[in-house]
Amino acid sequence: MKESEKQVLEFINNGHKHYFTHITIDCVIFGYHEQQLKVLVGKWIGMNGWAFPGGHIGRNETLTGAANRILRDRTSLDHIFLQQFYTFGDSIYRLKDFTEDLPQEIKQVIPLDNWLFQRTFSVGYYALIDYSEVKIKTDFFFEDYKWIDINDVPPLLFDHNEMLDVALSALRNQIYHKPIGYNLLPEKFTLPEILSLYETILNKALDRRNFPKKLLSLGIITKLEEKKNIGQHRAPFLYKFDKEKYDHALKEGIILVF
Amino acid sequence: MKESEKQVLEFINNGHKHYFTHITIDCVIFGYHEQQLKVLVGKWIGMNGWAFPGGHIGRNETLTGAANRILRDRTSLDHIFLQQFYTFGDSIYRLKDFTEDLPQEIKQVIPLDNWLFQRTFSVGYYALIDYSEVKIKTDFFFEDYKWIDINDVPPLLFDHNEMLDVALSALRNQIYHKPIGYNLLPEKFTLPEILSLYETILNKALDRRNFPKKLLSLGIITKLEEKKNIGQHRAPFLYKFDKEKYDHALKEGIILVF
Repeated sequence: MKESEKQVLEFINNGHKHYFTHITIDCVIFGYHEQQLKVLVGKWIGMNGWAFPGGHIGRNETLTGAANRILRDRTSLDHIFLQQFYTFGDSIYRLKDFTEDLPQEIKQVIPLDNWLFQRTFSVGYYALIDYSEVKIKTDFFFEDYKWIDINDVPPLLFDHNEMLDVALSALRNQIYHKPIGYNLLPEKFTLPEILSLYETILNKALDRRNFPKKLLSLGIITKLEEKKNIGQHRAPFLYKFDKEKYDHALKEGIILVF
Repeated sequence: MKESEKQVLEFINNGHKHYFTHITIDCVIFGYHEQQLKVLVGKWIGMNGWAFPGGHIGRNETLTGAANRILRDRTSLDHIFLQQFYTFGDSIYRLKDFTEDLPQEIKQVIPLDNWLFQRTFSVGYYALIDYSEVKIKTDFFFEDYKWIDINDVPPLLFDHNEMLDVALSALRNQIYHKPIGYNLLPEKFTLPEILSLYETILNKALDRRNFPKKLLSLGIITKLEEKKNIGQHRAPFLYKFDKEKYDHALKEGIILVF
């Protein structure tokens, strides 16, 4: 038996001694790149469909610590702004042990009363990253992954379509109360570029005059002397984030009106 | 032994068979009345201090169902808009079994490895009600209660001061995305009355012209022909909520700018 298989068996048989049962974390990882918004789904072993990556909380681990570890393990990304948005415990799937849906090959290997198949509450977190910079890791349980466009999402496993709706709605509301964009845009960017980012996430057109005014008045972005050379008659000015004001706004919250 | 004592012993000894362990619900119940915003705290038996009312989730109960049951049991209120806002699992208190803080009298009655003393994650819900209309119920565990002004909150038990900060911040953000006021104002109210409600909750002055404009343009409130007789030279017009538009906005969300 290979070392990795031994680890998997140990997790199945004794994982409940190291992790809490009945409570899990699921991560809705939004990926933005050049006016496209996608979301990461993975294929769990033995399950015929796609779902968000998730994991369990260690018995000595904080909830936030567990969420960051799971994100780091999957995406190799660290120090990412991870936002808790909702805890799920209402859907039909969440009200029962989910042994019915399991394929025969899994039922033969893992006993149906195993801790992994019990009713679970799931604490949902989302992150917003640049998907072109991420290296996703697969493993025994999480055997494949893909980025799907949020305008073209297929039926997902469990209650994960509902989870996506709630996450997207939370992300869209969050835009009015927390700054976004750092790590998603180049260090120096034009107003049309940051406008596109906001419009893509909100999925609607914004006022091209009011939008930058508000970000500038909050001090989150500052205008540079420099212009972007895009070979046009009118080269647009470049802007950058004021990291200190950005971090302060992230922590204290803002009311953005545009 | 009295019947109520038998029930308490049954809950201590066998509650974990009927309820989930390691996960609880806490309710931050905001009460508004005539420009005062208060919050409900209770005294748990044996604990030397105040905390928010809470409870456990039945093994066959939805998460939302449990939250509504707990609120109903405490306040006799039903059909209240209850908003989940955050799940707590990070504070020092949440990282350990909380046997250290227990007074001697409790330690003598309940074994320290009892399910009630284990590390718990708490799903926080808040509600906004008119505190003058509520009848709070006490019981064996929840032996006393009081309404405290949110500008004058003492140190609370566990991580409940942090819980209040997060709830208040969620309530204040929510105001920009969900309507409030139904059940908090008289059926017919003046613009200064609804302005006061919003200003009290947000704890800041709002623009007296823009504020009602936006609520009117969303159709959430409608102007009546009637005026309020307050014995002044200029009697103010009365307004009421459009319940259909209000409920729609509650469900679908709004972007309120004022």
